[in-house]
Amino acid sequence: MQDLTYEEGYACWLRYHAVEDEPLRQSYLRACASIAMPGASTVLDAARRELSDGLRAMLGTAPAPASAEDASIVAGVFGSDPRLGAKSLTGAEGVRLDEDGFVIRRSIDGPIVLAANTERGVLYAAFRFLKLLQTGASIERLDVTDSPANRLRMINHWDNMDGSIERGYAGRSIFFRDGRFVEHLSRIRDYARLLASVGLNAVSINNVNVHAAETRLIAEDLLPDVARVADVFRAYGVRLFLSVNYAAPIELGGLATADPLDPEVAEWWAERAETIYRYVPDFGGFVVKADSEFRPGPFTYGRNHADGANMLADALAPHGGIVVWRCFVYNCLQDWRDRKTDRARAAYDHFKPLDGRFRDNVALQIKNGPMDFQVREPVSPLLGGMTNTNQLMELQITQEYTGQQRHLCYLVPQWKEALDFDTYARGEGSLASEAASGALFDRLIGGLAAVSNIGDDPNWTGHPLAQANFYGFGRLAWDPRAAADDIAREWIRMTFGGDPQVIRVVSDMLLQSWDIYESYTAPLGVGWMVNPNHHYGPNVDGYEYAKWGTYHFADRQGIGVDRTVASGTGYTSQYHSPRSDRYESLSACPDELLLFFHHVPYTHLLASGKSVIQHIYDSHFEGADRAAELLARWDSLQGAVPEATFREARERFVHQAEHAKEWRDQINTYFYRKSGIPDAHGRTIY
Amino acid sequence: MQDLTYEEGYACWLRYHAVEDEPLRQSYLRACASIAMPGASTVLDAARRELSDGLRAMLGTAPAPASAEDASIVAGVFGSDPRLGAKSLTGAEGVRLDEDGFVIRRSIDGPIVLAANTERGVLYAAFRFLKLLQTGASIERLDVTDSPANRLRMINHWDNMDGSIERGYAGRSIFFRDGRFVEHLSRIRDYARLLASVGLNAVSINNVNVHAAETRLIAEDLLPDVARVADVFRAYGVRLFLSVNYAAPIELGGLATADPLDPEVAEWWAERAETIYRYVPDFGGFVVKADSEFRPGPFTYGRNHADGANMLADALAPHGGIVVWRCFVYNCLQDWRDRKTDRARAAYDHFKPLDGRFRDNVALQIKNGPMDFQVREPVSPLLGGMTNTNQLMELQITQEYTGQQRHLCYLVPQWKEALDFDTYARGEGSLASEAASGALFDRLIGGLAAVSNIGDDPNWTGHPLAQANFYGFGRLAWDPRAAADDIAREWIRMTFGGDPQVIRVVSDMLLQSWDIYESYTAPLGVGWMVNPNHHYGPNVDGYEYAKWGTYHFADRQGIGVDRTVASGTGYTSQYHSPRSDRYESLSACPDELLLFFHHVPYTHLLASGKSVIQHIYDSHFEGADRAAELLARWDSLQGAVPEATFREARERFVHQAEHAKEWRDQINTYFYRKSGIPDAHGRTIY
Repeated sequence: MQDLTYEEGYACWLRYHAVEDEPLRQSYLRACASIAMPGASTVLDAARRELSDGLRAMLGTAPAPASAEDASIVAGVFGSDPRLGAKSLTGAEGVRLDEDGFVIRRSIDGPIVLAANTERGVLYAAFRFLKLLQTGASIERLDVTDSPANRLRMINHWDNMDGSIERGYAGRSIFFRDGRFVEHLSRIRDYARLLASVGLNAVSINNVNVHAAETRLIAEDLLPDVARVADVFRAYGVRLFLSVNYAAPIELGGLATADPLDPEVAEWWAERAETIYRYVPDFGGFVVKADSEFRPGPFTYGRNHADGANMLADALAPHGGIVVWRCFVYNCLQDWRDRKTDRARAAYDHFKPLDGRFRDNVALQIKNGPMDFQVREPVSPLLGGMTNTNQLMELQITQEYTGQQRHLCYLVPQWKEALDFDTYARGEGSLASEAASGALFDRLIGGLAAVSNIGDDPNWTGHPLAQANFYGFGRLAWDPRAAADDIAREWIRMTFGGDPQVIRVVSDMLLQSWDIYESYTAPLGVGWMVNPNHHYGPNVDGYEYAKWGTYHFADRQGIGVDRTVASGTGYTSQYHSPRSDRYESLSACPDELLLFFHHVPYTHLLASGKSVIQHIYDSHFEGADRAAELLARWDSLQGAVPEATFREARERFVHQAEHAKEWRDQINTYFYRKSGIPDAHGRTIY
Repeated sequence: MQDLTYEEGYACWLRYHAVEDEPLRQSYLRACASIAMPGASTVLDAARRELSDGLRAMLGTAPAPASAEDASIVAGVFGSDPRLGAKSLTGAEGVRLDEDGFVIRRSIDGPIVLAANTERGVLYAAFRFLKLLQTGASIERLDVTDSPANRLRMINHWDNMDGSIERGYAGRSIFFRDGRFVEHLSRIRDYARLLASVGLNAVSINNVNVHAAETRLIAEDLLPDVARVADVFRAYGVRLFLSVNYAAPIELGGLATADPLDPEVAEWWAERAETIYRYVPDFGGFVVKADSEFRPGPFTYGRNHADGANMLADALAPHGGIVVWRCFVYNCLQDWRDRKTDRARAAYDHFKPLDGRFRDNVALQIKNGPMDFQVREPVSPLLGGMTNTNQLMELQITQEYTGQQRHLCYLVPQWKEALDFDTYARGEGSLASEAASGALFDRLIGGLAAVSNIGDDPNWTGHPLAQANFYGFGRLAWDPRAAADDIAREWIRMTFGGDPQVIRVVSDMLLQSWDIYESYTAPLGVGWMVNPNHHYGPNVDGYEYAKWGTYHFADRQGIGVDRTVASGTGYTSQYHSPRSDRYESLSACPDELLLFFHHVPYTHLLASGKSVIQHIYDSHFEGADRAAELLARWDSLQGAVPEATFREARERFVHQAEHAKEWRDQINTYFYRKSGIPDAHGRTIY
């Protein structure tokens, strides 16, 4: 495992390439000659180590320890040394500086000051400072003030204790193996570094589908192991959460019920919380998937989700923990013959009536779209729909429906669309990102959570370029206003170094990849044309007769789901005006979501001027061609990226090019056979 | 496990109900007062025990032991006592009496004589005699001479050593558990009884897909266990076979190759055979799935199937063993876009050129149809196509594609169609059953083999009525001319007793069940409209874009596979004339196979006068209604069949009725959406 292949992919964006521009290196060396870091703690130790190791790798020499008066770099918590300034310090642009924020300042020829309200802030400042050098920035003058937009910046793992990962495409769990915690935690430590380096501060380590083994994670025999892992994360400023089984009072506690209004149940959870906090004093809290896809929950007892979440919240509140309550609730035993029930409506219908009834330490975790991480969905109307409830937007880094880390699909542009979505909840400019952060409705808790794409593969993510999604999520969780192309470029620089050709080619590939993937898979927002269960590869009718509420209703005349108020399920009414009107209108509805909101004939003309059927043919032919070009473009980088990375990615691009043809042919054939309308350009359809 | 429920289902057709007609019981008692069975051996002991136990159960008293001169029943091998007569004895109808045949004779008031050439024949005579009493026959005068039509009457188990059963729907393996042989063999003994009671004489106990664990069944550490099981079967006249891994010389023997023409490989197998026969002196031989669905085989070494089979045959020949070589060979990595390759052609194309090149102790095992046990297929053209090669017809008792023992599907009528199929290989009347038995081409080895439907469920087969398929296969393997309704009636009598209502209702249900199942599932011979992998439930396009060579090519105009010589794959030419002409002709092709041989518009008129689309609608609506009637008819038997059996079956009939609606609606909706042609009767299609 210690060969070059491993090391190269393993380091991700913390590879710290040596600075090759000699004048620049000299200027860096001068500015980083020595360092002082008052105070001692595991988090400060981590920051100190990162600065030392990172600078040594990039400059050839680590900064010498010095006293604060003499040091060229002074890093620490405000007030811990006169040169760090007092807590009142704010940045040049007046940015609010919350507990995770930091400043990086340098006057000409003065010392470099990395200062923050908390030790975690100091660690973030250290990583940010290192990034300046990784990306070749000038550090002659510095005046950076930064604070995360989101208080909670979380990764959800869907790891099981047998070592498997639900929807994992990069090996086995780094936490569990064969029903137990792994013995050696060094990989978890390296993972915690990666999280901290992009400002992520929370992690839930087990699957939201909590099976028998994981139900025991809150039992005393396993809590010592939980505590060991929490210690590792704590050193990097990351709080540990656990997914819990709502039926744990029965399965673990031996009670007769898990009814949230039963005092014995509440007491059981309170006692559990107390025990957990004895082992993990900064325990983050619980992540809960309740009454969803056969998981137990308050519905069993005739209670609602507020009853269910608040009871857990009360158990955690005395200790500072929170409940992350997922809104992925719908009827998963739907009859495909029933066209009135609409899964897209479900989360809003369930949760909107409960707005304002959740405790302050509950956050509802809302998937970005109303269905389930499809390549294209509208934004969930719950984001901006709930005005008196803490919200988290849930994204999926692991590429369940977007190529499973065998296809390239840089998801940051997709996430950006969701974050920048105008909900109109407080009039124009009411962005979904601000509904999630809490800013829109002055909520204290808010943020982003995302399902991890990492496993024990040597390069963490299977596809080497899928690391960009992990990185990108962290960046957006800190700053949702960051641009997708900026994130791509800085990730490439940090990962592969400064070769302009690599930056240009890889950033082009990344930025086009979502569009490419969408174009040869699901047309016009309709989704779900995948093989059941594993969700890989084309199957147009794969979910058409299923119980999951996932239909496209294609017949020989047309396709799409009528979700209008006028003639369909009325889902469009869950949005604020004018958004709702736009979706309701066949002519105003954006092309890319047309089939999500409307059932139209194949001959319907899109805003683009093309018919629906010709759009399907064109996008699939072009998409497959563009997938083939990805391979050609990657091939142009041979020698310019590490050989092992080149090979690992190339193997996947070869597969993607071939598999895109399969997508193209199956989908085109399906619609040609159904519509009988030939391709205007006479290309081969089977 | 010893409660009544268990006992009732467990005994199958050997329940030996007490004779309730008192005069009849008295006549039986008089005729069976005492018994003499000269000789001693495990097989004769089994016969003696069966007669004693069976008569006691039916009559209240077991026959008393007596000397041959005084006994009312004399049973044994010809010549072992004067009253048994000499070997030259043949039956009244001049039936040839081979090694497994027997006679049962009685002159008025004379003793009952059960005599045979072999001890196994005596055992068969005993079971036959018991059946006379089970079915209430008069035994005042008896002159039965019977001999099996097939020399090999075999069951194939697809059991794995982990205890799972590939395509098993009745629990886990009775042979293996957790990687080892089961400890207690009593259930295997009871199974051997059931086999012998219907004249089955061969069994292969492990899956034709031979994985690593089962490859070791021919290794010395496992052969003692194999021998223990063979001993159990031997006592009931059943020879044990093993499925072998063609790559065993490499995986087990450590050789560099498994090339059949390599002398070292041949020597390795010869040595293995010798070892096996040291443990199992009457070992039957090897069953081989080679070069099929990713199994290794001679193709790897550029050899053909004759090379592959003959090498194994030479290893077994000195010991009297045979090679059963499966013909299920086709391209399982086909491209759905390629319409020239036709899986239906594959077995014939592979094996026909090798006719005459196989050793005399090789038998080719040919599935009844050219595809894979679909609810409706034509008969394989290899049956009757090979004139100089031993053949076995392979049937599937386990209901992989026919309802998985949750739907009722009595398969004997389907098998009868295959057995009675006129191949025209030697002119009119050249039945497939005689191609299989060897009679048609004067081959010494021939017979039937079938994939077992039993497991460790208390009632063996899951669905209580699925026992009829197990029984029926045994009966047809002995006598392919037996009628499906006779077999049904005798099975019902033996299983449930003589209640005329039960006999009438259950036999009606059994005899209609295949037709019912076909009518709500696959229309007009097209097949494969099932969910991939597990093969349960409707999925019209489930195999349409797959690699398995299984397509229906439905588009908005029509459906079916053109397998004609004139315009299609030419598969029809594999049959002898006039069969080939009939299939080639659109007008002469039987309706039920129309879409197997022809691609036609939905508006095409069938011989029945209906259009194809209306036939699809009608058969699916009627089929679902008839499935619901099965439940109602079964309900009429409450109290008339054992309560546990009633409940077990009822649960399945409830499911079948509901699932038939799902089949109906999915298939009708699919074709309505595709064709746009409404149902002539305006019934609901979604």
